[in-house]
Amino acid sequence: MSNEEKNLHELAGRIYDLDEEVYRELGSSLGRVFNGKKEDCIEETFRMMHERNQAYILRNELALISNMARTIQDRAVRHRIMVKYDEILKEVTELPTSFIKGDILDQKMAKLNMLNLQSRFSKNDHLIICIGRTYGCGGSEIGFTLADTLKINYYDVEIFDEVLKRLEAEKDYVHDKGGYPYKEGEDHQSRYLSTVPAFAPTPKSTIKEKLREFSRYHGLPKKDAIFFNQSDLICDMAKKEDFVVMGRCADAILTNNRIPHISIFITAPLEQRVRRIMEVRGYENEKEAKRLLTKLDKDHVKYYKFYTGRNWGKARNYDLCINSASYGIQGSVDLIMRMLKKDGDGKEGSEENGKK
Amino acid sequence: MSNEEKNLHELAGRIYDLDEEVYRELGSSLGRVFNGKKEDCIEETFRMMHERNQAYILRNELALISNMARTIQDRAVRHRIMVKYDEILKEVTELPTSFIKGDILDQKMAKLNMLNLQSRFSKNDHLIICIGRTYGCGGSEIGFTLADTLKINYYDVEIFDEVLKRLEAEKDYVHDKGGYPYKEGEDHQSRYLSTVPAFAPTPKSTIKEKLREFSRYHGLPKKDAIFFNQSDLICDMAKKEDFVVMGRCADAILTNNRIPHISIFITAPLEQRVRRIMEVRGYENEKEAKRLLTKLDKDHVKYYKFYTGRNWGKARNYDLCINSASYGIQGSVDLIMRMLKKDGDGKEGSEENGKK
Repeated sequence: MSNEEKNLHELAGRIYDLDEEVYRELGSSLGRVFNGKKEDCIEETFRMMHERNQAYILRNELALISNMARTIQDRAVRHRIMVKYDEILKEVTELPTSFIKGDILDQKMAKLNMLNLQSRFSKNDHLIICIGRTYGCGGSEIGFTLADTLKINYYDVEIFDEVLKRLEAEKDYVHDKGGYPYKEGEDHQSRYLSTVPAFAPTPKSTIKEKLREFSRYHGLPKKDAIFFNQSDLICDMAKKEDFVVMGRCADAILTNNRIPHISIFITAPLEQRVRRIMEVRGYENEKEAKRLLTKLDKDHVKYYKFYTGRNWGKARNYDLCINSASYGIQGSVDLIMRMLKKDGDGKEGSEENGKK
Repeated sequence: MSNEEKNLHELAGRIYDLDEEVYRELGSSLGRVFNGKKEDCIEETFRMMHERNQAYILRNELALISNMARTIQDRAVRHRIMVKYDEILKEVTELPTSFIKGDILDQKMAKLNMLNLQSRFSKNDHLIICIGRTYGCGGSEIGFTLADTLKINYYDVEIFDEVLKRLEAEKDYVHDKGGYPYKEGEDHQSRYLSTVPAFAPTPKSTIKEKLREFSRYHGLPKKDAIFFNQSDLICDMAKKEDFVVMGRCADAILTNNRIPHISIFITAPLEQRVRRIMEVRGYENEKEAKRLLTKLDKDHVKYYKFYTGRNWGKARNYDLCINSASYGIQGSVDLIMRMLKKDGDGKEGSEENGKK
């Protein structure tokens, strides 16, 4: 037997002894993990430590022992046993075959994920929070409130359009009347009226009109130029400032450009979203509202797939998904704020006024 | 004009003035939100405050103004303007038509969601964390490590089986050989070998055997009795102790029984899961591994749907979804720990040794 083997054997023995001790304290054989002959059990545990795909059994045995141990009433005894357990668990997890080895962490993904405490960001990295959301889940309100709480800029489709207009000073600027949610401003109205989003229809418009306006929002833009203009803009901004950005495939754009960010998807069950848009938008027909949301979701999937090749709304494509119906608007903001709290480990992202 | 109307008019005027002030400081008309005649702009803003579905426009105007204001270089000027902005925003959000009104929060869901700081739990509520996960994403390891960090019990299918066996002392206990992942222990082996999970096949078994073993895991159990036994057990335990529970439709069971809990879904992109099970389980054929995971996901959906009527793995059905490839095992545990941190507002859930 090599030295290493001797150590493993000794560790297996301590696991057996721990189980026996827990059993003795609880006085019930129900609490017993190892029931066979002592030597056989130790030999078996020893063997398991050598095989990676046996690691799960060892993990579960340890879980069983500690679950039982935690039911010991005497605090001092429980503490003594748990200390032993912690020592054993530490040694087991340090084995090359340990169940904790073989991490799911993807270095590339982790590097771009700002919520990951394990990775460090350079001082030049800005806090960029990309929020995708289903229509009616309150995602925009969460994004806006989050930006306000963090004192950083908030961008969504209308604001992007404004920024692009300003940057390009009307020149070389392709305004996509078909693919973006603008009503033409009427003559006597001030400029800001031209930014009325199509998804804020007046209560008097028919459901058919609303549907048409809604579907324009997620329909594919006539001119891809808009998308690429926005992509450039997002990457440029990411080098200069902290911000919250709603939709715009920003998460995919930043990932492709290897710019660290946080990607969050916000949604809620259809039932709650229907209730909310009826309440907020003044819709009266529940069936129509439901159909509208279902259609918008489908269009959104298409739009996102077309520009990014990725699946919109699938948990595996975001760092994190939040169900806003479980938290509400302020609750969701609080949750994200708690996650951003890096306890002094890196930037806080909440410096007053967001300026550096 | 009523008093209320006078106040709104005055507020609209202050929004116009703020925009003008920002414009003056930046010295560029690009920074201007309101370009029309002052009276018209104020009238328009005033009108918007009365209509709920215009609230989005007002929100975006405010976002535009504050985005511009944050680019002001002079710190003192910027601070003065941001203080004004904050006051205005506060008043606007307090309007009955405010964009922040019409929350997505669902009282029933929020009441059951332990991660929601807004709701208070009674002292009798225990910290129960339900974790659903896709196969290969490291979810079990995250759950186990989380339970260990919180010093609370960890339950998964094998442990449940043990607990049920113990509780029912072999009597009235329906052991579901078809639906649960146990290999029959051989005579000479100690009892714990009967808990070898089918999803930890030996490296020598063929991919076909593995597939059969795997599919048994998520296949519908032959005897629903197992499911209902487990449901009762989960509800019983939830009244007595804090714990982490893996799968077992625990989230749906607890929701149906109105027992507060945290429901988390963990997943990772297929590519990373394939890489991990090849590494951890010793599979060599990437295509087969991929097919296996895809099949398991499908079976999982079926199993969950059958027992709960809900859609497994959809973000809208969980309080929170985590992409483990973005965080890794320890990173995911850290993230959940940060979210649990209630800053003294309620229970911490991390009392030493988890006993009360």
